[in-house]
Amino acid sequence: MLRRVVIEAVTPEVDQGRFSAKATSGEDVVVEADIFTDGTDVITAVILHRPCEAADWSEAPMDLLGNDRWRGAFPVDHLGIYLYTIKAWIDPFLTWRRDLEKRLAAGQKVPVEFERGAGLVRDAAARASDKDRTTLLSAAERLSSGGTQAQLARVALAPRLGKLMAAVADRMHATRFAREVHVRVDPEKARFSSWYEMFPRSLWSAPRSGKGQAARVAQRDHATFRDVEARLHYVTAMGFDVLYLPPVHPIGRTHRKGPNNSTVAKPGDPGSPWAIGSEEGGHKAVNPALGTLADFRRLVRTARDKHGIDVALDIAYQCSPDHPYVREHPQWFRHRPDGTIQYAENPPKKYEDIYPFDFQTKDWRALWDELKSIVDFWIEQGVRVFRVDNPHTKPFAFWEWMLGEVYRQHPEVIFLAEAFTRPKIMHRLAKLGFHQSYTYFAWRNQKWDLAEYLSELTTSPVQDFFRPIFWPNTPDILNDVLQHGGRPAFIARLVLAATMSSSYGIYGPAFELMQHEPREPGSEEYLHSEKYEVRSWD
Amino acid sequence: MLRRVVIEAVTPEVDQGRFSAKATSGEDVVVEADIFTDGTDVITAVILHRPCEAADWSEAPMDLLGNDRWRGAFPVDHLGIYLYTIKAWIDPFLTWRRDLEKRLAAGQKVPVEFERGAGLVRDAAARASDKDRTTLLSAAERLSSGGTQAQLARVALAPRLGKLMAAVADRMHATRFAREVHVRVDPEKARFSSWYEMFPRSLWSAPRSGKGQAARVAQRDHATFRDVEARLHYVTAMGFDVLYLPPVHPIGRTHRKGPNNSTVAKPGDPGSPWAIGSEEGGHKAVNPALGTLADFRRLVRTARDKHGIDVALDIAYQCSPDHPYVREHPQWFRHRPDGTIQYAENPPKKYEDIYPFDFQTKDWRALWDELKSIVDFWIEQGVRVFRVDNPHTKPFAFWEWMLGEVYRQHPEVIFLAEAFTRPKIMHRLAKLGFHQSYTYFAWRNQKWDLAEYLSELTTSPVQDFFRPIFWPNTPDILNDVLQHGGRPAFIARLVLAATMSSSYGIYGPAFELMQHEPREPGSEEYLHSEKYEVRSWD
Repeated sequence: MLRRVVIEAVTPEVDQGRFSAKATSGEDVVVEADIFTDGTDVITAVILHRPCEAADWSEAPMDLLGNDRWRGAFPVDHLGIYLYTIKAWIDPFLTWRRDLEKRLAAGQKVPVEFERGAGLVRDAAARASDKDRTTLLSAAERLSSGGTQAQLARVALAPRLGKLMAAVADRMHATRFAREVHVRVDPEKARFSSWYEMFPRSLWSAPRSGKGQAARVAQRDHATFRDVEARLHYVTAMGFDVLYLPPVHPIGRTHRKGPNNSTVAKPGDPGSPWAIGSEEGGHKAVNPALGTLADFRRLVRTARDKHGIDVALDIAYQCSPDHPYVREHPQWFRHRPDGTIQYAENPPKKYEDIYPFDFQTKDWRALWDELKSIVDFWIEQGVRVFRVDNPHTKPFAFWEWMLGEVYRQHPEVIFLAEAFTRPKIMHRLAKLGFHQSYTYFAWRNQKWDLAEYLSELTTSPVQDFFRPIFWPNTPDILNDVLQHGGRPAFIARLVLAATMSSSYGIYGPAFELMQHEPREPGSEEYLHSEKYEVRSWD
Repeated sequence: MLRRVVIEAVTPEVDQGRFSAKATSGEDVVVEADIFTDGTDVITAVILHRPCEAADWSEAPMDLLGNDRWRGAFPVDHLGIYLYTIKAWIDPFLTWRRDLEKRLAAGQKVPVEFERGAGLVRDAAARASDKDRTTLLSAAERLSSGGTQAQLARVALAPRLGKLMAAVADRMHATRFAREVHVRVDPEKARFSSWYEMFPRSLWSAPRSGKGQAARVAQRDHATFRDVEARLHYVTAMGFDVLYLPPVHPIGRTHRKGPNNSTVAKPGDPGSPWAIGSEEGGHKAVNPALGTLADFRRLVRTARDKHGIDVALDIAYQCSPDHPYVREHPQWFRHRPDGTIQYAENPPKKYEDIYPFDFQTKDWRALWDELKSIVDFWIEQGVRVFRVDNPHTKPFAFWEWMLGEVYRQHPEVIFLAEAFTRPKIMHRLAKLGFHQSYTYFAWRNQKWDLAEYLSELTTSPVQDFFRPIFWPNTPDILNDVLQHGGRPAFIARLVLAATMSSSYGIYGPAFELMQHEPREPGSEEYLHSEKYEVRSWD
């Protein structure tokens, strides 16, 4: 009955505490809430906050913004989960002071009011330390002493008295917000990053690394991790801090795709890197044509230590028909009534070079464990950043579990969701734990739709869980503007991506060389896409 | 793990179930929700609903609106609390059928697909009644029989098979929305009403009731309930269905206000009806100048039975210094250090003719019970509609308790909140149980601000708990537009109020006679306000 303050509409909070809100290390978490009471009494509000492993709460003040909206902030300086909540109470002393100032300003004679103030100070003294109690009792004494109104006003409004009274404010009937809000603190790169995507197998006839490898590379038909290493200087010189490689694993041969997504591959066609797995291994192996696992580890280490750039790996949870899993764990796939394994499809389209996992298999625990172990494996190889292929076609429950487990052990690892799907599913994946998400930026090309989209992305609730990354192009998206807009379009789209979002990326060589020819009119696929061919970039 | 459907953003729901959503008897409750899953499987969703006293749930279908938003509705035909929730599941048969249609449209030969469908139908048969089981098994048989594609397609896509399969859909892994949402069903008048406010003591020199009382009334200096009765025909002829009377109780004499809010009343000045209580009684008495309690009861009965209009009473929880409560229950008021009782104030303004109750008095239980008994008393006299004065200056907890108790016993009773306060407090009061609320309409006079305000009022979340009533004027609000806009302004504001909200009202005679002179320039008070004088209307 005496807890008269209401606290609601707290941000950041995601789905009433169902999911963690997101912050990044080194920044302040800015908390807002509607805080109000009946009548006109003055309210004091504070944020209580702590790292989840700490025993004690710290306190940060909140200020009234207007319209009963309050704001405060607290710092988060290390990775992991922080908790916060809000406490607010009616402050009779501040209420009395506010009213007293109005009465004095109106020239009223208010001896009784000073006596009332003395009573409030005297009550507060009982809650104070010995030293402060003496000070407070003496202030109360003076307020009761019947001096001139000017004298009494000076005592009543002294800043020091205000501070002492605030320190011993009666919180007995404070309202505490109903929940302790979880805030997940991620590395700064989760929020602020610039990505460069390249196919490691593609050739560069004139590498600008200045290390004289041009001739050697050009004579071969497939580049390697060593060649990528030689390009690091070039990539970082442009300011990128994540180098994202499509899958680096052995590529299947059954139903291998040829150039331009042809269903027939000629001998020598390298296949799509997303058709993962062959007799040479699966998700924990590297394509021998790219080098060895040791080469890969060296690339990752060199990139981070010498160039300050993270190598991001592609997690595509799917198999070519030749993947060892198909033989060793046939129960992880769906079977058709004729006994064959169900390939991927989006009826009537068929993707016979890909077998999706059956996440609901009776053997799901073993499957899920194995899928998580793939991430663990690459973390052990030094990878800290993952780009996840089509997460929206796998169960939400899987991501929540997998990302949660990885986060517990490795809060330094970052996942980008390639969630090109409907908005609510995209948002759900971000809530489940993905650090960043692809967006609709590639299809927002007018001023009004960019403005509308940016408003959505930069306000609550979306800003509390969703970190957008803007890509002008990807190997799957050559949009209309780039196809027809020429150099000005490439420049404009790059500048928009890089300035409108704190994370952006380009699918590198194709963007730099302004590739703009689609596979066929109306298609967003590149002609001679690197997905199916080894390209030689000039 | 198998419960893959997500249900969220359900409307109507108020503060995640903290408060009841509102509906009115005879209408459909329209329920919407975001419902989606990973991947592209087809979902079926239903609303489960029941009156809270019923044991069994009824079911209503939901349809996909687009963008993963679903909608359905259920009827509510009596007053009280209804519950609803949502259930949704992945439907493998509908998914299979959708994909089959795409495959057939693309001209694919799909014998294996019919076999897969047969399996789904066979599984479903096990869940069916004897009769349906036979039908289903025979359909499965035919799908497995290897007929022509056209024959099999006819079996697969038959509407009757669809109906049977829907009836036995496997709901084992259905998602059920986390909460059972409370919907409070109110009388239609809570949503749809037209109010006429008049001071019963004021005189009409030419009443249009056509009953020849003009001469008699004009000779007196104070009208009565009998005179109001004679005006009922006039008021209902204009289409109003609520007649709202300011407080009808005895008026205090101490610090009684004179004309135009003067702090000095001359003998014969009637005082403000909101300064309630004198030696003649308090909140359960009627001002003898208006008549007897029997007269009042007769007015209420005649109004409802003969004219189809409800008399609304004003609940103003405050006392004049002469109220019997002040003498009998001094502990229900705040005392100043000098021993006097604290009058109402908004520093530096003082309202010495009014003593507010101390809702936090140690004796609060007795006070709250007594305040509720006032409402009970007037309900016993036949009143069904109350207008509550300044509810935002009394504790939220009081209203939640009081309105909840009254609703339990009398769901037919309606409360209008005179919550002219900040938006969040106004909304809170609506959530706590007030049926209708005054609004900012009087200060929304431009096209853009009316459009903005109406958008807010007619969308979730506000529409789920807040029923606006639009008043172009009240005894406290003579806005700028009416002061200066002349007859066109009065017409425009009336038409806007009556057409933009399903409830509206006017402060009658002053509006009809286009009173537009303020007490002083810049004031929204009427010159010679009826609040302080008996007016004689022509």
